[in-house]
Amino acid sequence: VLGSPRFENEIALRTGLAGVATGLAWTPVGGDILFIEASRVPGKGRLTLTGQLGEVMRESAQAALTLVKARATGLGIDPELFETSDIHIHVPAGATPKDGPSAGTAIFAALASLLLDRRLRSDTAMTGEISLRGLVLPVGGIREKVVAAAGAGITQVLLPERNRPDLEDIPETARRQLGFVWLKTVDDVLAHALEPRPETHPVVVG
Amino acid sequence: VLGSPRFENEIALRTGLAGVATGLAWTPVGGDILFIEASRVPGKGRLTLTGQLGEVMRESAQAALTLVKARATGLGIDPELFETSDIHIHVPAGATPKDGPSAGTAIFAALASLLLDRRLRSDTAMTGEISLRGLVLPVGGIREKVVAAAGAGITQVLLPERNRPDLEDIPETARRQLGFVWLKTVDDVLAHALEPRPETHPVVVG
Amino acid sequence: VLGSPRFENEIALRTGLAGVATGLAWTPVGGDILFIEASRVPGKGRLTLTGQLGEVMRESAQAALTLVKARATGLGIDPELFETSDIHIHVPAGATPKDGPSAGTAIFAALASLLLDRRLRSDTAMTGEISLRGLVLPVGGIREKVVAAAGAGITQVLLPERNRPDLEDIPETARRQLGFVWLKTVDDVLAHALEPRPETHPVVVG
Amino acid sequence: VLGSPRFENEIALRTGLAGVATGLAWTPVGGDILFIEASRVPGKGRLTLTGQLGEVMRESAQAALTLVKARATGLGIDPELFETSDIHIHVPAGATPKDGPSAGTAIFAALASLLLDRRLRSDTAMTGEISLRGLVLPVGGIREKVVAAAGAGITQVLLPERNRPDLEDIPETARRQLGFVWLKTVDDVLAHALEPRPETHPVVVG
Amino acid sequence: VLGSPRFENEIALRTGLAGVATGLAWTPVGGDILFIEASRVPGKGRLTLTGQLGEVMRESAQAALTLVKARATGLGIDPELFETSDIHIHVPAGATPKDGPSAGTAIFAALASLLLDRRLRSDTAMTGEISLRGLVLPVGGIREKVVAAAGAGITQVLLPERNRPDLEDIPETARRQLGFVWLKTVDDVLAHALEPRPETHPVVVG
Amino acid sequence: VLGSPRFENEIALRTGLAGVATGLAWTPVGGDILFIEASRVPGKGRLTLTGQLGEVMRESAQAALTLVKARATGLGIDPELFETSDIHIHVPAGATPKDGPSAGTAIFAALASLLLDRRLRSDTAMTGEISLRGLVLPVGGIREKVVAAAGAGITQVLLPERNRPDLEDIPETARRQLGFVWLKTVDDVLAHALEPRPETHPVVVG
Ligand SMILES: [Ca+2]
Ligand SMILES: [Ca+2]
Ligand SMILES: [Ca+2]
Ligand SMILES: [Ca+2]
Ligand SMILES: [Ca+2]
Ligand SMILES: [Ca+2]
Ligand SMILES: [Ca+2]
Ligand SMILES: [Ca+2]
Ligand SMILES: [Ca+2]
Ligand SMILES: [Ca+2]
Ligand SMILES: [Ca+2]
Ligand SMILES: [Ca+2]
Repeated sequence: VLGSPRFENEIALRTGLAGVATGLAWTPVGGDILFIEASRVPGKGRLTLTGQLGEVMRESAQAALTLVKARATGLGIDPELFETSDIHIHVPAGATPKDGPSAGTAIFAALASLLLDRRLRSDTAMTGEISLRGLVLPVGGIREKVVAAAGAGITQVLLPERNRPDLEDIPETARRQLGFVWLKTVDDVLAHALEPRPETHPVVVG
Repeated sequence: VLGSPRFENEIALRTGLAGVATGLAWTPVGGDILFIEASRVPGKGRLTLTGQLGEVMRESAQAALTLVKARATGLGIDPELFETSDIHIHVPAGATPKDGPSAGTAIFAALASLLLDRRLRSDTAMTGEISLRGLVLPVGGIREKVVAAAGAGITQVLLPERNRPDLEDIPETARRQLGFVWLKTVDDVLAHALEPRPETHPVVVG
Repeated sequence: VLGSPRFENEIALRTGLAGVATGLAWTPVGGDILFIEASRVPGKGRLTLTGQLGEVMRESAQAALTLVKARATGLGIDPELFETSDIHIHVPAGATPKDGPSAGTAIFAALASLLLDRRLRSDTAMTGEISLRGLVLPVGGIREKVVAAAGAGITQVLLPERNRPDLEDIPETARRQLGFVWLKTVDDVLAHALEPRPETHPVVVG
Repeated sequence: VLGSPRFENEIALRTGLAGVATGLAWTPVGGDILFIEASRVPGKGRLTLTGQLGEVMRESAQAALTLVKARATGLGIDPELFETSDIHIHVPAGATPKDGPSAGTAIFAALASLLLDRRLRSDTAMTGEISLRGLVLPVGGIREKVVAAAGAGITQVLLPERNRPDLEDIPETARRQLGFVWLKTVDDVLAHALEPRPETHPVVVG
Repeated sequence: VLGSPRFENEIALRTGLAGVATGLAWTPVGGDILFIEASRVPGKGRLTLTGQLGEVMRESAQAALTLVKARATGLGIDPELFETSDIHIHVPAGATPKDGPSAGTAIFAALASLLLDRRLRSDTAMTGEISLRGLVLPVGGIREKVVAAAGAGITQVLLPERNRPDLEDIPETARRQLGFVWLKTVDDVLAHALEPRPETHPVVVG
Repeated sequence: VLGSPRFENEIALRTGLAGVATGLAWTPVGGDILFIEASRVPGKGRLTLTGQLGEVMRESAQAALTLVKARATGLGIDPELFETSDIHIHVPAGATPKDGPSAGTAIFAALASLLLDRRLRSDTAMTGEISLRGLVLPVGGIREKVVAAAGAGITQVLLPERNRPDLEDIPETARRQLGFVWLKTVDDVLAHALEPRPETHPVVVG
């Protein structure tokens, strides 16, 4: 399956760097978690997509990048970064074909995390299509995805507001373990998925 | 179906930013509304098209962009914008294949709205092929599209003048709810689809 | 069929701007007229072709552009224009596949009209393959094309000199309505298809 | 068939400009003559190939261009031309697929003629593959090609030296009409195919 | 099979230059060793991949390059190198199709070796997928690969930590011959695969 | 077959310029010799490959070029040449598809000969795959290739060291005619295939 971690503490390992988001996938044999890895190297503004991503998922990554670029100033990202960097998005496992629009929120989160240099929470997974203007659109497979998240030790899931009716299909055990955030916009994603900044203690000069 | 909103107030939400037009689509199971989203980021004049758009629809987007560029000065758009921006057009839902020339007027409207930074009316939907010189050409599926517009709470539809004979096929209920604008050129689109500018109250210095 | 106008006065409407030529097409159900639309926007010398044009027709457009470029000075076109413009050729209806070399004269005429900023006559339609050095080569379907031109209200048709033997196949009614120009070179096309320049009245200063 | 002229004086018309060579083609229904048209416009060194040329013929054109470039100085061609021009090679009839390496000598001759601005003889046709270093290699279909040349009024044919054994297959009538030049290198092509330069009469100042 | 050496001392020959890593491959007829060759020439930052590499393996090479670029400073590689070089990765035998993600660690090692200009150990072979952020992910075929390594005279194999459970499947004879290194990150690869730097003897000036 | 010369003295003709190597090919109907032609024209570092070369052979040419670039200084080639030239490799006969990695040594030899401006020996033919770091790897069809070389008047063949066991399959007649050089690296190729430099007689000034 899609790069499923064998040990729960692996999620912390996988998301230990800024630029890695935990997504949720639907597969014919059940839900799974997957990691969206984004990396930035000096370059000329190119976008590289690897991990056997299908056409819809590639378009989703392009939309996520446009969204981050269009909101750069608001997010606190230096717009110059995009001209002087190449961005690479990879989704292990490398040999497993993946497709669909539902990783949009996770790709957006990975890119924002990378460019803000702020890690994403390792207890949090997400699914949701994004619109080009930043709305979160509903996706399928909510039940299977949420069950997989719970099984992998996740404690917070970010789901599209418009999938709220799917809550009733989620088994009680998973609902007890998990906190649910219902997403209207990609701003909601960052509000709940980025690790809190370390507190800055004011220095008092006496 | 094509990104159909589940709630009527969603159209306002979807079109709340400049650069989003409400189009009308024909599908084998009836008409539908769809949102054309255009976004602009710093760049070098590239055009990105996503949303599983077929070849005819991609060509239609290219024609709409040429049309906006050729009329930039007349529309009040700074021609420099095109050289220093990348433009991205996306049509949710990301996984749904879409094709055909009939979104031409909506793509033109989305681009003009984006570049004028003026929102489009959320009560208005449109269909129509465009010629490269700005004429609006007739399209099929008028009946289904108009019924879908009415069902989604739209109150004004913009249709090609040359589709006027199709008016008689539209059910009475839809005709009562809707105002019809018959389009000869893309200028007619903007005249009826752009939100009015906020009035500027003259400041009187006494 | 190929963007057939429903009303005769539509040809005037369609060709009301410089850059639009009226061509003649053969289809399995008879001849038709079609409009070649050319547009120019600030750019870097790119050529965009839309309207579901097949490979032969795309090559024909490339040849027409080379021909206009090679003759720019002779035609009175500023050669700098090609470096600082992108040119877009579109042939409505956008969803109808089109192919074949016989639109060569019309594409040449549309490009020359665009770059000279002189309109083409709305009473004139044309067919003919072009060679890269400016000769007009014979094409098929003359009878069907000429009948369609007559039916659309055209009064002058431009045909390849080497198709003159096909004249005898044209019905008497069409022959009475139409003037025929037999083309040897693309210079003959412009001589008969461009609208006359408005007369300049000499200003006499007394 | 391949752009066959209907009248013998057409060859003079077709080759009336520098940059047009008369080639010989083999088709399933017999030989034919075809015209290789080369044109040069201000540009950046691009090569455009049109006329429904197959992969082998396209490679042949690339080899011919490399050959002309590599010999530019020797031929008297300004090497700067290649950087500041785009070259377009077209082979009418535009809708007829063509392929094979045997037009190599004719493509070379068209390019050299174009860049030297010297016309090729209208009484001369040629066939022969070229090597990248300028040798002429043998081709098939000599009998059919030569008969077609004779039928079109050609009086001199240029054939690969290594096809000399095919001479015996050529009918007596064609052999009486034609002069044969047997080619070892592309220099032999130019020696026999370029029109003689006009004599320059010395001006005697008394 | 995949470029299998016929003599054991060939591995030393093949890896005698910086930039060549010894990988392990699974084939339907058993494991095999293969050489990943990386070369750098003056250029503009292009990546060339040859050796009939499938899509997954090509993506794996792109990820390895991003990883080396992102860690350049930490590894002691001048980041300027990437802009002024073209990098070529080739995997003999040239005619044998290869695919899969498991050469990730070996491609990373070859690139780091090349750019550090430090040779890789000729007694060491490796297998393992890489994540874009530098983790080593598990792969299949461990038993066959390790048996092949032993048969080729390798004495140290680098395997993903997460493949440790596969150790029990490896035959006793191979386990006796080989040292095993279990990889968590690509740093572990370099720590065990790079040849030790030659000792620098301090120069004592008396 | 693959451009087989009809006369033995043709090899001297074909290889009479620097940049042409004599390779050996295996075909279903026996071995054959083929000529690798390399040419250099002013340009920007592009590589053009023609002669209906398959994917493996194209990759082989890319590896040969990287190898020449990486060794330029050692070979005495000005590295600036690569930036200011386009290189074209062609393998007649233009219509014959060719593939496989075994022309690697001959492509390397042609490129080195071209860039050193030193001819290759016309009595010498070669086969052998190359690694990206300059090793010569074994190939198939040695018996057929060597017999063809002998039949074409070749007197020296360069074969991969690792094909030495195939010597016993070569017929006695061919072995008597031919000298065999067994190649370990591409340096061995140049040592035996380049024509000796003309002796420079010291000029004694008395
Ligand atoms: Ca794929
Ligand atoms: Ca999905
Ligand atoms: Ca698609
Ligand atoms: Ca439609
Ligand atoms: Ca198409
Ligand atoms: Ca036609
Ligand atoms: Ca074709
Ligand atoms: Ca041929
Ligand atoms: Ca392949
Ligand atoms: Ca594997
Ligand atoms: Ca091919
Ligand atoms: Ca071979």
